[in-house]
Amino acid sequence: MKALVLERQDILSLRDFDIAETLGPDDVRIAIKTVGICGSDLHYYTHGRIGPFVVEAPMILGHEAAGVVAETGPNVTHLAVGDRVCMEPGIPNPLGRATQLGLYNLDPDVRFWATPPIHGVLRPSVVHPAQFTFKVPDAVSLGEAALVEPLAVGMHAATKARVKPGDVAVVLGAGTIGLVTALSALAAGCSRVFITDVAQPKLDLAATLGAITPVNIANESLPEIIAAATDGWGADLVFEASGNARAAASVFETLCPGGCVVYIGMPGGPIPYDVVAAQIKEARVEHVFRYAHVFPRCLALMGSGQLNVKPLITETYAFADSIAAFDYAKAPAPTSVKVQIEI
Amino acid sequence: MKALVLERQDILSLRDFDIAETLGPDDVRIAIKTVGICGSDLHYYTHGRIGPFVVEAPMILGHEAAGVVAETGPNVTHLAVGDRVCMEPGIPNPLGRATQLGLYNLDPDVRFWATPPIHGVLRPSVVHPAQFTFKVPDAVSLGEAALVEPLAVGMHAATKARVKPGDVAVVLGAGTIGLVTALSALAAGCSRVFITDVAQPKLDLAATLGAITPVNIANESLPEIIAAATDGWGADLVFEASGNARAAASVFETLCPGGCVVYIGMPGGPIPYDVVAAQIKEARVEHVFRYAHVFPRCLALMGSGQLNVKPLITETYAFADSIAAFDYAKAPAPTSVKVQIEI
Amino acid sequence: MKALVLERQDILSLRDFDIAETLGPDDVRIAIKTVGICGSDLHYYTHGRIGPFVVEAPMILGHEAAGVVAETGPNVTHLAVGDRVCMEPGIPNPLGRATQLGLYNLDPDVRFWATPPIHGVLRPSVVHPAQFTFKVPDAVSLGEAALVEPLAVGMHAATKARVKPGDVAVVLGAGTIGLVTALSALAAGCSRVFITDVAQPKLDLAATLGAITPVNIANESLPEIIAAATDGWGADLVFEASGNARAAASVFETLCPGGCVVYIGMPGGPIPYDVVAAQIKEARVEHVFRYAHVFPRCLALMGSGQLNVKPLITETYAFADSIAAFDYAKAPAPTSVKVQIEI
Amino acid sequence: MKALVLERQDILSLRDFDIAETLGPDDVRIAIKTVGICGSDLHYYTHGRIGPFVVEAPMILGHEAAGVVAETGPNVTHLAVGDRVCMEPGIPNPLGRATQLGLYNLDPDVRFWATPPIHGVLRPSVVHPAQFTFKVPDAVSLGEAALVEPLAVGMHAATKARVKPGDVAVVLGAGTIGLVTALSALAAGCSRVFITDVAQPKLDLAATLGAITPVNIANESLPEIIAAATDGWGADLVFEASGNARAAASVFETLCPGGCVVYIGMPGGPIPYDVVAAQIKEARVEHVFRYAHVFPRCLALMGSGQLNVKPLITETYAFADSIAAFDYAKAPAPTSVKVQIEI
Repeated sequence: MKALVLERQDILSLRDFDIAETLGPDDVRIAIKTVGICGSDLHYYTHGRIGPFVVEAPMILGHEAAGVVAETGPNVTHLAVGDRVCMEPGIPNPLGRATQLGLYNLDPDVRFWATPPIHGVLRPSVVHPAQFTFKVPDAVSLGEAALVEPLAVGMHAATKARVKPGDVAVVLGAGTIGLVTALSALAAGCSRVFITDVAQPKLDLAATLGAITPVNIANESLPEIIAAATDGWGADLVFEASGNARAAASVFETLCPGGCVVYIGMPGGPIPYDVVAAQIKEARVEHVFRYAHVFPRCLALMGSGQLNVKPLITETYAFADSIAAFDYAKAPAPTSVKVQIEI
Repeated sequence: MKALVLERQDILSLRDFDIAETLGPDDVRIAIKTVGICGSDLHYYTHGRIGPFVVEAPMILGHEAAGVVAETGPNVTHLAVGDRVCMEPGIPNPLGRATQLGLYNLDPDVRFWATPPIHGVLRPSVVHPAQFTFKVPDAVSLGEAALVEPLAVGMHAATKARVKPGDVAVVLGAGTIGLVTALSALAAGCSRVFITDVAQPKLDLAATLGAITPVNIANESLPEIIAAATDGWGADLVFEASGNARAAASVFETLCPGGCVVYIGMPGGPIPYDVVAAQIKEARVEHVFRYAHVFPRCLALMGSGQLNVKPLITETYAFADSIAAFDYAKAPAPTSVKVQIEI
Repeated sequence: MKALVLERQDILSLRDFDIAETLGPDDVRIAIKTVGICGSDLHYYTHGRIGPFVVEAPMILGHEAAGVVAETGPNVTHLAVGDRVCMEPGIPNPLGRATQLGLYNLDPDVRFWATPPIHGVLRPSVVHPAQFTFKVPDAVSLGEAALVEPLAVGMHAATKARVKPGDVAVVLGAGTIGLVTALSALAAGCSRVFITDVAQPKLDLAATLGAITPVNIANESLPEIIAAATDGWGADLVFEASGNARAAASVFETLCPGGCVVYIGMPGGPIPYDVVAAQIKEARVEHVFRYAHVFPRCLALMGSGQLNVKPLITETYAFADSIAAFDYAKAPAPTSVKVQIEI
Repeated sequence: MKALVLERQDILSLRDFDIAETLGPDDVRIAIKTVGICGSDLHYYTHGRIGPFVVEAPMILGHEAAGVVAETGPNVTHLAVGDRVCMEPGIPNPLGRATQLGLYNLDPDVRFWATPPIHGVLRPSVVHPAQFTFKVPDAVSLGEAALVEPLAVGMHAATKARVKPGDVAVVLGAGTIGLVTALSALAAGCSRVFITDVAQPKLDLAATLGAITPVNIANESLPEIIAAATDGWGADLVFEASGNARAAASVFETLCPGGCVVYIGMPGGPIPYDVVAAQIKEARVEHVFRYAHVFPRCLALMGSGQLNVKPLITETYAFADSIAAFDYAKAPAPTSVKVQIEI
């Protein structure tokens, strides 16, 4: 089948690719319709690797996908041919110890799309376990459904944070993950989110998405703003979504006593961490890795109108223009958030 | 001062009442502006008692109140004269064991407005601890602020339920408490609420308040509707807000495995409880009594536009017409939810 | 192979039974060495059914088992031939929705030993998933290991209760499940357990097992004893382990504000449940069904000497005397707790 | 009254000190009997300050205290003259925001014994709120009762960790706080604790205290030992009790997926913190500051024999020899853990 193949670092081809997939009894075959470009896709394109994961053979890219069910295995009951669906890109070992505990995202044997040597889904069809394939509500487009994958990262963070209704949250970083985290925090019950960045266009977009207050830390003081907004008490939740070491080191400055920090962004190395500052507030610090159990929750919130990701889809390309889409996404307009490809 | 006094069962007077209150160092004096009529006010009016609480001397009614700060004690720093505020009506013993644990609503020594022998606030002013007096955001009217008291019951229930974003909730009963619980469940992160009643006008109102599906159990089957909406899995949360014994006994029918039930309504006696049905789903059952720590959370959600109680204020009377307001509230229009009095 | 077969209600045979089991890649074959007799085994023997589960064909009994690994499938890495092991008797569908959430005990498709039509393990060998087969520490005998199955019920209850160190617990009922719950509560951090019954020999045994105070409710008042022991505050935890409706209805009498009740026993029908009594204390009520994730925890606690179940093994029979063992267990000595059969 | 006074850095006097204390209605007067010497007492002695807390006027030392009630205020009901008691040394503002939430240890206005300018209790008597004065069980000596204060630090950490029964814990550091944390972890339900240090005498003592495995990291590899003990899974809990930056940076090495780290020790500055290592395991990291709500829990566990701190009391001095006691404690025997003074 035709696929967008990363031949090796810097070299993409849209070409025929021989990939045979057998439909197991618990699987579905999905006709792929929309795929978003993720930072990790771009990183493999431009660097050929992410940490220990190295592209050593041609690999199909893409893991933020939505489509339509084309065939179902005999054990599949909750999906039917023609259903509009989106998919979790990781398939854990169902018998693994972490999986058994419900922590399937921590399974070391997980097979994850577009993570070498596992192929991604920028291609017309894929076979996938029905267990990780989710029906999309009528009110949600396939473009939005393809955004569930990055949204799930923010939603998992908001779930781990155990938001109490009315909480005030800070989100550090207004990139895609920061924005979906802000949306997730609001959907999870926060009364208000303060989001930081130095890129004003991202902040301007954030301000249109709901009860979100942008803070440009190039010229504003986040601690002062939070102190003023909370009578000096601090924010209930701080989500670190920038991966920036300095931001990651600052999380306790704006936190309230008994508050919670969630590290989502992945800094390049160890950060300076002020244990005593965390102790004085008895901070709880959570760390998230991908997501678990949240795809259907995202879809339910989108389907009922409680959460809207449409404004984050800023550019859409045809499959034939996939390489152009990637080249654009390497250096996009400052207002760009999510570039998608339609197949 | 002039006050609405319940002289004894069935006899209300709007008359001068001698009540001297000293402003302590941690107190504020509040000019009362709006007071909602609660079912308990009506019950004292028509029955002269609620359980062990008997009206044995003339008592001022009213405990759902908002107003303006008129005077502040010397230790008060977070409030100033002129601030628009609403108040928690219960004052616990700060040294009590439950209070120390943060469970101040369970303190047996709590003094609660309009619960004999403590006077309520249908009067021009009251002295109250600043600790339980909360500044109202600019975007929130005093009528809405007076609704925080009943809203807090629903919000406390939603908080205890530990809603996860995307949860599906059932609320049994579409009276005032059912409606504020549905709003709270949505604000707390539910994707959808199914609310039941047999009174169609309440259900019609509920349907206008957001992602709320009304279910008239006079002619619809809640278990069938929930099964269809959740692929047979069940609702994540069931809030019992009717106080009806039959409803209270049915809570496990629509619950999902690992789900949570919250009992808010107070049935008149023991209900038949199916332990095995709860075990098969390993239900967690929470019980709430009034509320704790949620007033500022309600105000924050209302102030940021995440939650709107305005549609619940269906009638407003002048203070001079207080007795008429109570007589109306005894047998209100079927579309009536909350009757308020302005002072 | 030779097996203890329940031919039909009231008829047991120790006879050859044709049962072919294939070793899958993730399975182990276990030579069974010790099997405890459970109340459910006896109930099938004497009644031929438990609720909807009816013995319609000859069925091997027994599900509390320990043994030695005789053969391992190719994927099995954490077990080796010769390892002493005990097993969880239930095998869930690894792809089920409850299983995926970590709630595998709630999977409706679970296959559970000695629950019709699934055979039990009173026979020389069984094939079982390695995932549910656990290595027994050196310090633990196979008799004790076979007791892990009932112990797991109490341990799961103590885990769900989220015991805080120093909690005071009440256990209602001093049968096998009450006793293992008391031991589990202590192992989980309780400072003291009060256990009730009317059978004095059980209470006398309980008193020898640690910081356990027996209360014979035939002539002592539990509420008075708990009030005296807790300065009137109440017990932090109440475990209902009797299945008696009256006991199940009494759980809030001795509970402290903010306390937790766990229903373990299964009453024969709905019980009268005092919602308001639970609300005044904001009780959290948990319900347990079998267990999940606790077998290795039980073994670890037994292996390190933190928990000792030896005193609960009161009688041991040879496999050849299995029928006599069952007939004894139907009407055992008042001091009898657990009857085991050695193969 | 006679008191042990830190005149200024390095200068202690045992002399008359004029300190007038009025008994309030909710207070008790306590005749002090035993006081332990804490590292903070020694640090004020040798450095004259701890961080921002500077000894600017003569201050009585000592905050680990037990005694006998000598007088009770009129509101006090749960204590009587003659009761043996121990006391929490910190008195929070009962109306503070953190206090109201139940987090009274985080109240910034707390008044804490022997923290400038608040006097400690190395003196014959003190007036203290009854709310923070706890009756000692008969089976517990006043020396052990005076050890509740440091024990409470470990118990608070174990409580925050939410130990599940059977958890495996690592404690980094075998000083007093490390030892009481190990004891607390076991009392809270751990099956086994691995404790590290380079001081072999501390480790030898630790090994006598229960299911505790000492690891001398001067010549043993903790990660290898934990991997071997847990089949490569990791420890459920890691308690950092050394305050050592290198130890604090290593916490994720031995942690299992989904595990919990608790920072108890206070490093001298920021530590290098590996966010990604924490993310891959979705670690929950808790931080503790002193303790809240645990004194009665410690006493209950000690009273029922579930926890024994006697071996930690290694030296006892008479009040007249207080200065010698302090000088000894500055450079004690390698086997010394807790030095106490009897008054």
